[in-house]
Amino acid sequence: MLRVGLLGAGRIGKVHASAIAAHPESVLAAVADIDPQVADALASAYGASSKTTDAILADDTIQAVLIASSTDTHADLIEAAAAAGKAVLCEKPVDLNLARARACQDAVTLANVPVMVGLNRRFDVNFQTLKLALERGDIGKAELLSITSFDPSPPPIEYIKVSGGLFRDMMIHDFDTAHFLFGAMPETVSAVGSSLVDPEIGEAGDVDTAVATLRYSDGRIAVIKNSRRAAFGYDQRVEVLGAEGMLQAQNISENSVVTSTSDGITAAKPMHFFLERYAGAYAAEWAAFMDSVLNNAPVPVTLTDGVAALAVAEAATISAREGRPVNLLEVE
Amino acid sequence: MLRVGLLGAGRIGKVHASAIAAHPESVLAAVADIDPQVADALASAYGASSKTTDAILADDTIQAVLIASSTDTHADLIEAAAAAGKAVLCEKPVDLNLARARACQDAVTLANVPVMVGLNRRFDVNFQTLKLALERGDIGKAELLSITSFDPSPPPIEYIKVSGGLFRDMMIHDFDTAHFLFGAMPETVSAVGSSLVDPEIGEAGDVDTAVATLRYSDGRIAVIKNSRRAAFGYDQRVEVLGAEGMLQAQNISENSVVTSTSDGITAAKPMHFFLERYAGAYAAEWAAFMDSVLNNAPVPVTLTDGVAALAVAEAATISAREGRPVNLLEVE
Amino acid sequence: MLRVGLLGAGRIGKVHASAIAAHPESVLAAVADIDPQVADALASAYGASSKTTDAILADDTIQAVLIASSTDTHADLIEAAAAAGKAVLCEKPVDLNLARARACQDAVTLANVPVMVGLNRRFDVNFQTLKLALERGDIGKAELLSITSFDPSPPPIEYIKVSGGLFRDMMIHDFDTAHFLFGAMPETVSAVGSSLVDPEIGEAGDVDTAVATLRYSDGRIAVIKNSRRAAFGYDQRVEVLGAEGMLQAQNISENSVVTSTSDGITAAKPMHFFLERYAGAYAAEWAAFMDSVLNNAPVPVTLTDGVAALAVAEAATISAREGRPVNLLEVE
Amino acid sequence: MLRVGLLGAGRIGKVHASAIAAHPESVLAAVADIDPQVADALASAYGASSKTTDAILADDTIQAVLIASSTDTHADLIEAAAAAGKAVLCEKPVDLNLARARACQDAVTLANVPVMVGLNRRFDVNFQTLKLALERGDIGKAELLSITSFDPSPPPIEYIKVSGGLFRDMMIHDFDTAHFLFGAMPETVSAVGSSLVDPEIGEAGDVDTAVATLRYSDGRIAVIKNSRRAAFGYDQRVEVLGAEGMLQAQNISENSVVTSTSDGITAAKPMHFFLERYAGAYAAEWAAFMDSVLNNAPVPVTLTDGVAALAVAEAATISAREGRPVNLLEVE
Repeated sequence: MLRVGLLGAGRIGKVHASAIAAHPESVLAAVADIDPQVADALASAYGASSKTTDAILADDTIQAVLIASSTDTHADLIEAAAAAGKAVLCEKPVDLNLARARACQDAVTLANVPVMVGLNRRFDVNFQTLKLALERGDIGKAELLSITSFDPSPPPIEYIKVSGGLFRDMMIHDFDTAHFLFGAMPETVSAVGSSLVDPEIGEAGDVDTAVATLRYSDGRIAVIKNSRRAAFGYDQRVEVLGAEGMLQAQNISENSVVTSTSDGITAAKPMHFFLERYAGAYAAEWAAFMDSVLNNAPVPVTLTDGVAALAVAEAATISAREGRPVNLLEVE
Repeated sequence: MLRVGLLGAGRIGKVHASAIAAHPESVLAAVADIDPQVADALASAYGASSKTTDAILADDTIQAVLIASSTDTHADLIEAAAAAGKAVLCEKPVDLNLARARACQDAVTLANVPVMVGLNRRFDVNFQTLKLALERGDIGKAELLSITSFDPSPPPIEYIKVSGGLFRDMMIHDFDTAHFLFGAMPETVSAVGSSLVDPEIGEAGDVDTAVATLRYSDGRIAVIKNSRRAAFGYDQRVEVLGAEGMLQAQNISENSVVTSTSDGITAAKPMHFFLERYAGAYAAEWAAFMDSVLNNAPVPVTLTDGVAALAVAEAATISAREGRPVNLLEVE
Repeated sequence: MLRVGLLGAGRIGKVHASAIAAHPESVLAAVADIDPQVADALASAYGASSKTTDAILADDTIQAVLIASSTDTHADLIEAAAAAGKAVLCEKPVDLNLARARACQDAVTLANVPVMVGLNRRFDVNFQTLKLALERGDIGKAELLSITSFDPSPPPIEYIKVSGGLFRDMMIHDFDTAHFLFGAMPETVSAVGSSLVDPEIGEAGDVDTAVATLRYSDGRIAVIKNSRRAAFGYDQRVEVLGAEGMLQAQNISENSVVTSTSDGITAAKPMHFFLERYAGAYAAEWAAFMDSVLNNAPVPVTLTDGVAALAVAEAATISAREGRPVNLLEVE
Repeated sequence: MLRVGLLGAGRIGKVHASAIAAHPESVLAAVADIDPQVADALASAYGASSKTTDAILADDTIQAVLIASSTDTHADLIEAAAAAGKAVLCEKPVDLNLARARACQDAVTLANVPVMVGLNRRFDVNFQTLKLALERGDIGKAELLSITSFDPSPPPIEYIKVSGGLFRDMMIHDFDTAHFLFGAMPETVSAVGSSLVDPEIGEAGDVDTAVATLRYSDGRIAVIKNSRRAAFGYDQRVEVLGAEGMLQAQNISENSVVTSTSDGITAAKPMHFFLERYAGAYAAEWAAFMDSVLNNAPVPVTLTDGVAALAVAEAATISAREGRPVNLLEVE
């Protein structure tokens, strides 16, 4: 039984706690949070101890940590945990600062422990099925990738202000999906963004509606659309055109009921947000991490992958700000 | 150019007039109606003459007639037109009385002219595609057929009273579709019906909601559902389960627009009623008739087919009334 | 923590063991099976004891039992467990013999414990959503219900021989769904069946393809289609036509990927069989049972419901055999 | 009866001939083509005269011309026909050269005749329904428009070489659709393109796969994807995200048949190409032109609209070539 320490007991920490507890070979041993009461509450729900982060890292009976604390702590905690010999699964992003993320990547290379970044969409059964079909050649050589990713509603403005901006905070998932599906990094990134959803977001220097176009050295193109708001819920679609056809991963509905009336034919909305939509992906992500820890399987999402997604986000941020395509070499 | 006389200038007569005029090898030459003003109006719109039925049948320049008058005149007009040497396309049903329909069938056998019954659904591209797939063996041997056929709203009660009842007036189309798809007649028919839509229909001795189950000698089963009312429009679906899969012909939407809001994901309703839904089928039906007239192609829907559908309707009417399965031999 | 004894450790027993273990307020305490090795294996996987049925019923620390043994033991075990003061959740059916099921129902009325029948589809989120919409009046008064229920492939012929026949074994679920949605029992049942899938099923005196039509005293109609085989997987659809529209619960796909090639536009198949399709329903069923046990909530599916479904199955069996509609009064 | 002269009797000319003939108030009077035999054949099929272009323009009994000749003749013929007092419907584009198109626009302003550009998609019932929903406020203020437009297969390389390139030849339709839906011109255009479908296209200096992103002065964004090849047929989708929801116009299938087998659930492909997909749009386009000619209704697609689409295409061509966003002011 792998004993796991959870660093951060907020919304996403709770999701991970549940996945850790549900896995037959892991147990939630300890929980830390900057608010000890929050840690206490989550710990007691799972029969775990509430401890400080330092105490968890010093506890030799704990073999792995899951980092779900605030973004600004990720790189430091990854380094500390790896240095303490723990296997690490850290929520995205590694850091908002690309240089800091790269330094973390270097530091961790020295520690001989599995370190995985929690880019959860790689574990969604629909995207995985699409990737398998792509690799199997169902549509021949891929040419044009489209990713649509709309949140139901924007996060609080306080969150926006420390988020690093839409490209680093939200579209980073889609940059990783493009990386996952195409198995390559783009050569250039062109991005445009607007603040249409909430003027406060614009005043904070961020955008809430954006499109990024990625061009690869072999001519392939990926286009990503993001909005912080979709009145109908969480829109998460992927589409790939290839030489012999097209693959689409469509939304998942809350239920299969269709109502036909004089007003039209109405189906259920998509699952509302990431907790519902990616519940299975979080469990699969933890299972994949466990496989790396217990069976020495290759880590499926490495720090290198996390840094790669961040680099594209950095390029997109520059592109949108300066109104020009940015070559990835600029952010090396 | 085939010169055609139209007998009956009501709603369905107008549909046929348009198909006749649009066909490159036929022209609407004359129109008759019990209301001469109605005949005049339709004739003048197409540059045709307004004449009596007798005058049309006596006109040697007219090679074909389309019978779209009231049901009680069909059998007489078919016999008269065939005796006059005209090719005949007659709207369904041949007659509400099975014996009269059979007598008409016998009479017409002697006349050496193409006589076709207008069971329009056989010419719908969707049902034809389904039949082709069935014949091609896409789902192996057919086992279980389901037909759903709902009208948007009931006809006037005056129409209901002379219609012969739901099974002869409405479900007759579905009995023919079953015949068309299975290529066989059922052994027994079990039907139940209720008056749920409009109590006046029940008071008139008819039903407005009904289910018929047909069992074939080889064990195949067909189930047909009818309602005189569907708030969302015209529902026309066919589904066949076979040994190796299932074929479905789904509804055709008015347009392809989907609206996603906080209320759900809403698509357009089905095409509202038979004029829209089967516009293409009426044109294809006329083209098939023209092919029989001009090229001696076999008539695709014969009087025998029309009588067959009526026989099943007769059996279903008895079954629903007497609350027992009816063997087709009973109505021979 | 409610301590639960599981009677029967076969395929469906394993499903329930998992639901019991996953619920925060129940624990799998003991497992019995006619094959002690099977009981041992399941018990050890969950840290439970392997015991005899008698020992479980005699164990005062066990407050509830889940009966998942073979059908012929259900009624006896329900009575014994209720007499021993255990809360009972028993898999359907209560018994294949209607009189025996009714006797069990009478016996249990005396015991003052919650007794629930495991008609799992009542807990499927899609059917529940449909029922809520019906009750909310989204389509006005219900008129015509259609249930399609096809298994991917028939069970072994040995199972068929002791199953009580398709109507009691398979369509019983759909009879219960009709009861659940319409909140009423039919007046008459007409059923036809054929052996088209496997001649061995016909030789065993059973059918593998069947349609039943239920007519209610207020004129409502329900039609149920069953097949033991659907090449594309598990087909579980419900459709209700009402005065103001239609509700449909459609199939749930294995994933949301759509592949468009020169061969057509291909989506994933439905979830393959009941274990996948109703995984959530089994968990919700157990949660509902727990709510009855812990909070004295009314049992959501009573023995009366179980007997009601069996009575309709009995009527359908007679109807198909004798080729006539059967009034429910005949099986009272 | 409006007598119409058709200039150009190729593939698209034939489509228009059929629409002219089918309209109750217009008749195809004369046909011209650079190949007189091609003109003869089409003219005789419709009982029209085969004439030279000059003869048609000089014929005072001809009130309108439809220009469907090669692109390089459009501007000259528009000017000549307008000068001759004919009402003009000209296929897109006005000219491949923006300055020439603008000169034509100026020239025609002086002639007091209806001049309409044949941007057929504005007349598609699906896009019109979407636009109406947008104007009705069904999704609130529009924010993000996506247009997907894939041809089934590339045209011959000879055509590509004189086409003006993908942006002027193919994406021009989508630039017009964006104009039609947003009712505004973009401020900047960013485009990327690749030659992935056929290396000959790349060698000819063109692209076959491209994405353009349009940003409007109020922050709205439109993204357009084009490919010269989609193995499954003609892909024509529009999607608009707004403050209160999303509108999508989806593809139109060849038929409604769905086949479910062990291989999956397969629906029909989209209508194969523009002749099938936009057959109704061509008829509606002609009806709208007739309405302008006969009833002085405002011309629904003016030369100004045609020039506007061309200007965006020009900007996109520059953007893709130079790898930078292009402000529309650059092409004024």
